[in-house]
Amino acid sequence: MDFSYSKKTKALQRKLTVFMEEHVYPNERIYKEQLDQQESRWTNVPSIIEELKQEAKENGLWNLFLPDSTYGAGLTNLEYAPLCEIMGRSMIGSEVFNCNAPDTGNMELLERYGSEKQKKQWLEPLLAGEIRSCFSMTEPDVASSDATNIDVSITRDGNEYVINGRKWWSSGAGDPRCKLAIVMGKNDPDAPKHQQQSMILVPLDTPGVKVERMLPVFGYDHAPHGHAEITYDNVRVPAENMIWGEGKGFAIAQGRLGPGRIHHCMRTIGAAERALEALCKRVQSRTAFGKNLADQGVIREWIADSRMEIEQARLLTLKTAYMMDTVGNKEAKSEISMIKVIAPNMALKVIDRTIQAFGGAGVSDDFILAEQWANIRTLRIADGPDEVHRRQVAKLELRND
Amino acid sequence: MDFSYSKKTKALQRKLTVFMEEHVYPNERIYKEQLDQQESRWTNVPSIIEELKQEAKENGLWNLFLPDSTYGAGLTNLEYAPLCEIMGRSMIGSEVFNCNAPDTGNMELLERYGSEKQKKQWLEPLLAGEIRSCFSMTEPDVASSDATNIDVSITRDGNEYVINGRKWWSSGAGDPRCKLAIVMGKNDPDAPKHQQQSMILVPLDTPGVKVERMLPVFGYDHAPHGHAEITYDNVRVPAENMIWGEGKGFAIAQGRLGPGRIHHCMRTIGAAERALEALCKRVQSRTAFGKNLADQGVIREWIADSRMEIEQARLLTLKTAYMMDTVGNKEAKSEISMIKVIAPNMALKVIDRTIQAFGGAGVSDDFILAEQWANIRTLRIADGPDEVHRRQVAKLELRND
Amino acid sequence: MDFSYSKKTKALQRKLTVFMEEHVYPNERIYKEQLDQQESRWTNVPSIIEELKQEAKENGLWNLFLPDSTYGAGLTNLEYAPLCEIMGRSMIGSEVFNCNAPDTGNMELLERYGSEKQKKQWLEPLLAGEIRSCFSMTEPDVASSDATNIDVSITRDGNEYVINGRKWWSSGAGDPRCKLAIVMGKNDPDAPKHQQQSMILVPLDTPGVKVERMLPVFGYDHAPHGHAEITYDNVRVPAENMIWGEGKGFAIAQGRLGPGRIHHCMRTIGAAERALEALCKRVQSRTAFGKNLADQGVIREWIADSRMEIEQARLLTLKTAYMMDTVGNKEAKSEISMIKVIAPNMALKVIDRTIQAFGGAGVSDDFILAEQWANIRTLRIADGPDEVHRRQVAKLELRND
Amino acid sequence: MDFSYSKKTKALQRKLTVFMEEHVYPNERIYKEQLDQQESRWTNVPSIIEELKQEAKENGLWNLFLPDSTYGAGLTNLEYAPLCEIMGRSMIGSEVFNCNAPDTGNMELLERYGSEKQKKQWLEPLLAGEIRSCFSMTEPDVASSDATNIDVSITRDGNEYVINGRKWWSSGAGDPRCKLAIVMGKNDPDAPKHQQQSMILVPLDTPGVKVERMLPVFGYDHAPHGHAEITYDNVRVPAENMIWGEGKGFAIAQGRLGPGRIHHCMRTIGAAERALEALCKRVQSRTAFGKNLADQGVIREWIADSRMEIEQARLLTLKTAYMMDTVGNKEAKSEISMIKVIAPNMALKVIDRTIQAFGGAGVSDDFILAEQWANIRTLRIADGPDEVHRRQVAKLELRND
Repeated sequence: MDFSYSKKTKALQRKLTVFMEEHVYPNERIYKEQLDQQESRWTNVPSIIEELKQEAKENGLWNLFLPDSTYGAGLTNLEYAPLCEIMGRSMIGSEVFNCNAPDTGNMELLERYGSEKQKKQWLEPLLAGEIRSCFSMTEPDVASSDATNIDVSITRDGNEYVINGRKWWSSGAGDPRCKLAIVMGKNDPDAPKHQQQSMILVPLDTPGVKVERMLPVFGYDHAPHGHAEITYDNVRVPAENMIWGEGKGFAIAQGRLGPGRIHHCMRTIGAAERALEALCKRVQSRTAFGKNLADQGVIREWIADSRMEIEQARLLTLKTAYMMDTVGNKEAKSEISMIKVIAPNMALKVIDRTIQAFGGAGVSDDFILAEQWANIRTLRIADGPDEVHRRQVAKLELRND
Repeated sequence: MDFSYSKKTKALQRKLTVFMEEHVYPNERIYKEQLDQQESRWTNVPSIIEELKQEAKENGLWNLFLPDSTYGAGLTNLEYAPLCEIMGRSMIGSEVFNCNAPDTGNMELLERYGSEKQKKQWLEPLLAGEIRSCFSMTEPDVASSDATNIDVSITRDGNEYVINGRKWWSSGAGDPRCKLAIVMGKNDPDAPKHQQQSMILVPLDTPGVKVERMLPVFGYDHAPHGHAEITYDNVRVPAENMIWGEGKGFAIAQGRLGPGRIHHCMRTIGAAERALEALCKRVQSRTAFGKNLADQGVIREWIADSRMEIEQARLLTLKTAYMMDTVGNKEAKSEISMIKVIAPNMALKVIDRTIQAFGGAGVSDDFILAEQWANIRTLRIADGPDEVHRRQVAKLELRND
Repeated sequence: MDFSYSKKTKALQRKLTVFMEEHVYPNERIYKEQLDQQESRWTNVPSIIEELKQEAKENGLWNLFLPDSTYGAGLTNLEYAPLCEIMGRSMIGSEVFNCNAPDTGNMELLERYGSEKQKKQWLEPLLAGEIRSCFSMTEPDVASSDATNIDVSITRDGNEYVINGRKWWSSGAGDPRCKLAIVMGKNDPDAPKHQQQSMILVPLDTPGVKVERMLPVFGYDHAPHGHAEITYDNVRVPAENMIWGEGKGFAIAQGRLGPGRIHHCMRTIGAAERALEALCKRVQSRTAFGKNLADQGVIREWIADSRMEIEQARLLTLKTAYMMDTVGNKEAKSEISMIKVIAPNMALKVIDRTIQAFGGAGVSDDFILAEQWANIRTLRIADGPDEVHRRQVAKLELRND
Repeated sequence: MDFSYSKKTKALQRKLTVFMEEHVYPNERIYKEQLDQQESRWTNVPSIIEELKQEAKENGLWNLFLPDSTYGAGLTNLEYAPLCEIMGRSMIGSEVFNCNAPDTGNMELLERYGSEKQKKQWLEPLLAGEIRSCFSMTEPDVASSDATNIDVSITRDGNEYVINGRKWWSSGAGDPRCKLAIVMGKNDPDAPKHQQQSMILVPLDTPGVKVERMLPVFGYDHAPHGHAEITYDNVRVPAENMIWGEGKGFAIAQGRLGPGRIHHCMRTIGAAERALEALCKRVQSRTAFGKNLADQGVIREWIADSRMEIEQARLLTLKTAYMMDTVGNKEAKSEISMIKVIAPNMALKVIDRTIQAFGGAGVSDDFILAEQWANIRTLRIADGPDEVHRRQVAKLELRND
């Protein structure tokens, strides 16, 4: 269990930190301004993003997320963890390095389970950062935390599959560059429970695909990325768009969610670190009742608790990454579930304390705090709610016994 | 310590509940739609509001907040509590009955400390619901939780006062009907610490008053109400606009904040009750892993804990109201501070559990949950952050000892 | 919902407070010393107890717990609440006034469900404080939180009942004055689930009754009271010892537990108040790192939170008492369950903070803190564990919906 | 940061686990019985202990705690951590392997700071397990969490030092084999604040040393080990008994507390693991309301949360050990403080949940739970209370900023 950062990782850490300080943080405000200055916040991706992507690519800070393969940067999960953490400090951090969800998960899925043709058509432009994708799994009408509830139908009809139904929280579908939805649906209701589902590639411009609306998150629209509600009305795609094979949906979902989940945790730790830094700065720069905030009441408890919670969450995330690298995602199932619960809950606490210390400024958009909070709050629900992951951890624990 | 609801209260409770069900809840969505259909969300107050206000006025459900006086409905704090709670169940509930913050606090302030002329000019149209007002106290550059930090200057110049400085979180200033700011500022830096501050009436159309921008709250703009950052640049108002007298700012602030704070708590309890109802309904209507959510894991603990927390918070709020009515706001100081901490924290927990049970729907705007959460989160900061109120409670407790 | 204390209550409060200060607190240490000076801690009840009982009886502070009846002091639950709270401040407080568990519950049971003969034989000497009793319900081999699991057999045999099985946590059975066990057992395994159980009076000197051992509580033996494990080996008692009738065990248990539970809560609130007083005194009298403890870190948060938690728990206890008095124990079922969870958990938090502020002194027996903590910790288990009460609250809440 | 267990560690882990299962767990009850069968619980150490020590020594499981040195087993902190954890599973585990507090800390102190003569006289018999020692630092009359408050006087008088004052919580002084107290006291009140203190060796049989009484912990006497209150009345020891030199007390205390603290954490993690195992077993073997406890309500949340908390605490403990080994105790200051807070608080939560699931059995002595809980509760106070450690973490964090 060696968590030491490799030479390669350390070099990338340094490079990434410098890049963030020089290029990302100073442009966070500009990104927002460009977004607001458009006719609509959904019209375009702010141009600063493409500029920064170019810059990042030239610096070799590109596609770091994809584990060792012909396509990726050749980093293990453990090597990627501290890098992903740094990216997660900024709301625009991940995309600049082509490491943003849900594209990372989708790319990993295509790399693992896609046919050569599918890779050629979709994986390569995704890796190049030319197009974006969404993952269309959650449904409004059922408790999607139990994936066997998924109800959109995928029916074979000659050389095509026909897709019908309604999805929501298809994140990223608002992006004008988003060309692809990976849709999970039921293609055989009579198969064994975990073999009823398939995943299929649906180009977003296929007739019958309709983005109904964008769902806000605590008031944030997350434009231009967005969280879409999409109806699929007799959407026809060629049979070759099926991924891996009929009935493989559940297996793919499990495979996709492992890395996707840990990436979220890593980013979340970065967000918490940035909040703690902000907290320490703020309380040393403000005075009330004749004393520095840092010298009052409960403030130092907040700082100490935040540091303790971050340290612990990071170590367990590293251990999980290490296990995914060495014994595989399946053996790391309990650990993945654990950090999926721990990291977001930890970050919400840390950020909430910082918000409280910032007062009114904390809930506004003058700082990144409220936005990070709202974003991370969704992670207690997305990719399996806390309750399902706790269930999983307990189940494995009881089995050990 | 008799918390029984009076006959009058019970009759009003029934009437109000019916009114909410018939007129308010069904129009929550329409309110939002009208807001979105305007050229800008800040152009007008949705017309449904004025229609509902008319309806409420005709039903005698108007200005219920103002304690016994020539102006008000003659209800004590204890009588008003359960009514305010009902209003707080909806984001548009309070305004319909002319019981919304910060106008209620401002009206109470004018009724108590205003001159006859001030009452004539400002209190009467406020009570009639014709104009709106804002309260301009918090400043961006200092820890305003310590009101002695307030730094905007109010300087006498002949028959006028000149106001200079910057405020923010002047809530309600976005409303096109908002005509008045009650501004707190320093008029004598050399006076004893708690006599340096004054409050003064500033018509919003006075030259030099500039609404710089509207502050969002967790992504919500709270249009058309809004939270304004306002600069006062050599703003001149007649000397008679001073409230009560120079140096009375701190005393007025204390007087204003008592009722204002308890109103927030009452509304917050209503919001929590509505969330708990929603939670109970949701978990009985959704199924995962072959069982009703209501029969799984931790759900019933959430329900039980929510009920326990609401019950306790309500009782302490009623006790506080009772004390304000019988021994006065000053004697109820510790209780006011206690509920100011307890009620919002309680409601945040209850609503957060409900959000979690709702999954993606919970963080979106399909339900009122995320919006209520964000709104109530600000109450842990507004009118004194939790930490200042805990300080106060501890101070009084140590003194008892 | 009038929680005002009646004139009678206020007079008793004053009298009781004076009595505690003059007679009880100063003798707490003497009680312990007398206990330790005996040959064994189980030999006798320290003589100070009988002296104080005499004194209390002469002062009319006797049997205050028993609601209006020919036997009792004629106080309602609401009237008794603040008195019971005062008694709960001391570990020996309740017994001095003949208001200690489990005798109070047993006396109430006999008063309600006992025959005239049973009252004559057992209730009268209990009310006189001449004998003590235990309640023999919990069993070591089953989850007794579900009372239908109770497995001791009570079998009719001619004019007698024969009792067989093993009980534990029969509290009070160690007391040399303890003469009576009220035993719950199954007398008809074929009856409907809630009519299989009966309660029967078993004189402790009946052949076949064997006190096997005394169970410690976190290291405390609670001598001479004690928590006994008792075996009943073919124990024969006259048929007339059956209480109310065969199959009534469950109904009696429900009736007994209502008042018993709320008394525990009241005492617990008193214990918390005493701990908070001790906390306030301690932190003002000790210095570390150059400052009074009261002026450091998190201490004031502890004080404020403790005050808030106590206030809320007391109000809900009073409301519950009020409901028991006005609409009956059955209608107050949810409230009884709520305070049964809230009060002990609250007190454990308050006392734990005080222990922490006292340092090593806090966990020792130089103060009452550790002993109170251990005692109250058992209340999260006794008379239904927290989990069963939360279940109950949730069930009633879901039904409302 | 390589936390992998070395080959040596893994072999010792296996050996130790087998030893615990074969020799320690089965003798826990015998230990208690032997203790109770004596004339007094303080008379002798139960003979089973010396038998097990002999057995352990023969198996090479002896003095594993002492880092690489001529005296110790040559294990690093990281190597010792998983072994210490295993020992901590039993209340008698550590002593069997001569790895029990406070002797380990005292031996480490003597090894580091003792003169050759001091080592010869005291370290060697301690390492042989022939004698025991106590650490006499805490005082009843001052807040000893601030070590500069320590007030016992050590005065040079010719070739001797004279010690006067009162100590308590001198743990281990009850043991009939205890021959030595390491006493911390003030020898120069005029020196700079952190150079006023010295540590000195005091044979327990020196005239003037009086063990006044044994302090209980939540009702446990912890016999025969015990926590002593000791008065030092003109106690004279040779000048050569001074450790390291006058004024070095504070420096030694800091050096001693690092390893001592982490050992406590390791043991605590073992105690939590054992409790979690017990929890899992219990809830699968008991039924209530027609279902296995493991399938009810909040139980699985308890299991999952416990697993998550243990994993995180262990990883941070390992990281701390690793840092102590690689960069030294001083650089690991923040980490030591963090685990000192985290591990006991974590274990208290885990054990409390298990107690709750065990019901009455949990608070009794039929299981190790209540005893472990009480023991670990003292660790939130001993060797610096939580509050002082949080202070430390925050201070270092603010400095980083």
